[in-house]
Amino acid sequence: MVDKESRGQAPAAPAGSTRMPVDALRALLARIFRRHGTSDTVADILARNVANAQRDGADSHGIFRMPGYVSTLASGWVDGRAVPVVTDAAPAFVSVDARNGFAQPAHDAARALLLEKVRSQGIALLAIRDSHHFAALWPDVEPYAEQGYVALTFVNSMACVVPHGGKRALFGTNPIAFAAPRTTGAPLVFDLATSAMAHGDIQIAAREGRQLPPDHGVDRDGEPTCDPQAILNGGALLPFGGHKGSALSMMVELLAAGLTGGNFSFDFNWDGHPGAQTPRTGQLLIVIDPSRAGGANFAQRAEALVDAMKDAGQQRLPGERRHRQRRESLERGVAISDADLAMLRELAGEA
Amino acid sequence: MVDKESRGQAPAAPAGSTRMPVDALRALLARIFRRHGTSDTVADILARNVANAQRDGADSHGIFRMPGYVSTLASGWVDGRAVPVVTDAAPAFVSVDARNGFAQPAHDAARALLLEKVRSQGIALLAIRDSHHFAALWPDVEPYAEQGYVALTFVNSMACVVPHGGKRALFGTNPIAFAAPRTTGAPLVFDLATSAMAHGDIQIAAREGRQLPPDHGVDRDGEPTCDPQAILNGGALLPFGGHKGSALSMMVELLAAGLTGGNFSFDFNWDGHPGAQTPRTGQLLIVIDPSRAGGANFAQRAEALVDAMKDAGQQRLPGERRHRQRRESLERGVAISDADLAMLRELAGEA
Repeated sequence: MVDKESRGQAPAAPAGSTRMPVDALRALLARIFRRHGTSDTVADILARNVANAQRDGADSHGIFRMPGYVSTLASGWVDGRAVPVVTDAAPAFVSVDARNGFAQPAHDAARALLLEKVRSQGIALLAIRDSHHFAALWPDVEPYAEQGYVALTFVNSMACVVPHGGKRALFGTNPIAFAAPRTTGAPLVFDLATSAMAHGDIQIAAREGRQLPPDHGVDRDGEPTCDPQAILNGGALLPFGGHKGSALSMMVELLAAGLTGGNFSFDFNWDGHPGAQTPRTGQLLIVIDPSRAGGANFAQRAEALVDAMKDAGQQRLPGERRHRQRRESLERGVAISDADLAMLRELAGEA
Repeated sequence: MVDKESRGQAPAAPAGSTRMPVDALRALLARIFRRHGTSDTVADILARNVANAQRDGADSHGIFRMPGYVSTLASGWVDGRAVPVVTDAAPAFVSVDARNGFAQPAHDAARALLLEKVRSQGIALLAIRDSHHFAALWPDVEPYAEQGYVALTFVNSMACVVPHGGKRALFGTNPIAFAAPRTTGAPLVFDLATSAMAHGDIQIAAREGRQLPPDHGVDRDGEPTCDPQAILNGGALLPFGGHKGSALSMMVELLAAGLTGGNFSFDFNWDGHPGAQTPRTGQLLIVIDPSRAGGANFAQRAEALVDAMKDAGQQRLPGERRHRQRRESLERGVAISDADLAMLRELAGEA
């Protein structure tokens, strides 16, 4: 299953690491999820999600997340066996009650109906409530772009971001993800937190004793600070881009929670579930069929925009690095450090 | 018509200014538009838009814009008599060919059909192409929120923003506007450029000899600069919030132009029309009926979020200042400087 690669012209896996086929990684992750209380269906869906993030080099949402998933399942905070309830709310509107389960199975359960609606109506909306999103957001939109649709999604999380001009955390990191098809190459995809920085990056800065740039966080008194420890010890993050990022973060709360019936980032309480790490909120997804607008082919227009962005000197397109890493992982296996592999085997009871 | 106000307890209009009822201002503006070649319908729609911006204290999109409208009409770049062609593209998808006219008459022509679709389908999309948008963006979404809907719109403009990591201008200021209903008070509305600063604010800084903060613009060689003159003389703006704002600006190009069939911000050429100032692009509008999601009333949830934002110390809600100014203008008339009033009368041929 694991392929310690050092042959041929290709560079070896980094020292102290191995390469594993994506399928094998997915199977190992699914065993971990099942062992810690999810249904087979949920295990397969989450394992694919985590394995694909690792495959794409999106390390912060890859196997790095597994201990958090496991401790959350152990805490009883999330229902790993929840069966989402899909409602055909209107001709272009699907709503899903995730029933305190993960968001990804809710997407899976609604996808066929949502696609049918997009094809027939031109645009369709998916409103998920009572869901836990602990993953990267791009996997929720990228598959639609691969089928020629444009997709846009919003998810709120847990109170750790101070609204612009405020003193206390209220918004989550509240990411927005977008995907659009091109004629050549992988879709244009971005996934951006509306906070100035990801929470994990603050932790890394604190560990390394680095100061942060200005405008990234506040301390416990709501005063600006560049000290990552002060942000972590009762302080909070700021939105990216000042009042504009704050307005977008507010919009994410309204769309992902207000509109779906999910919790706002500040209105759930997991005190009774030590070890819980996944926010219990909601998510909104909009999918558009660009062929309905008439005129030129959308994917061709997107390609023309990409050409112009490169001509203007933009070095890297959104999603490009991830797709380059994906190609390498599919050809040569996913690089996993020995420590991570030991951790996964421990979680799987296979150590 | 003009009411030089200095009586009673209310503060007088600022020195060198008068107060005019909104209706009278609208009528004066409509006369200007008609005199410079628009149809009666287009004149009424644009006059309402500009008068409402002035009423709300949104000065940069109020009567300040009138010389630009007039010189653009005189240049033959825009068709002030265009009749938009509305197409019922799919059950939840309306497309409009603005036929080289202004975007606002296109909205007006499509509104009834769009609302019918939102009510029956749960979500609906309006794709406008070949349109000129020279106005604030919030007036395109606020009326939907006043009727209980959530609305989101995107418009691209003219190449003046360098993509993140690039050297040359490509994107427009590419604003995003959002509106959502509340149970009390005016809707939550924001309208934000995805550029670091509005173009007009750069001009003001240059005039006043002020340096800009870092990360606002580049010079003609694509190098970072804080000198507003360097930005104006062959340089360009940067997106707000670094690579995130740049990704959002790209998304606006794809939605407002790629998807509608309108021009990208960089692919129209007005060289043959000296005096032209309005970008000939496209616009996308999404309207959602939040009652379809089931669960709690959306406007009540929005109100709860507002309460939480105030509790967290946020001083000012998006749109709040504008609505306060509106109340004052409706009670006491719109404040207009004597110089502006003279300019308007000149444009109307009534000097």
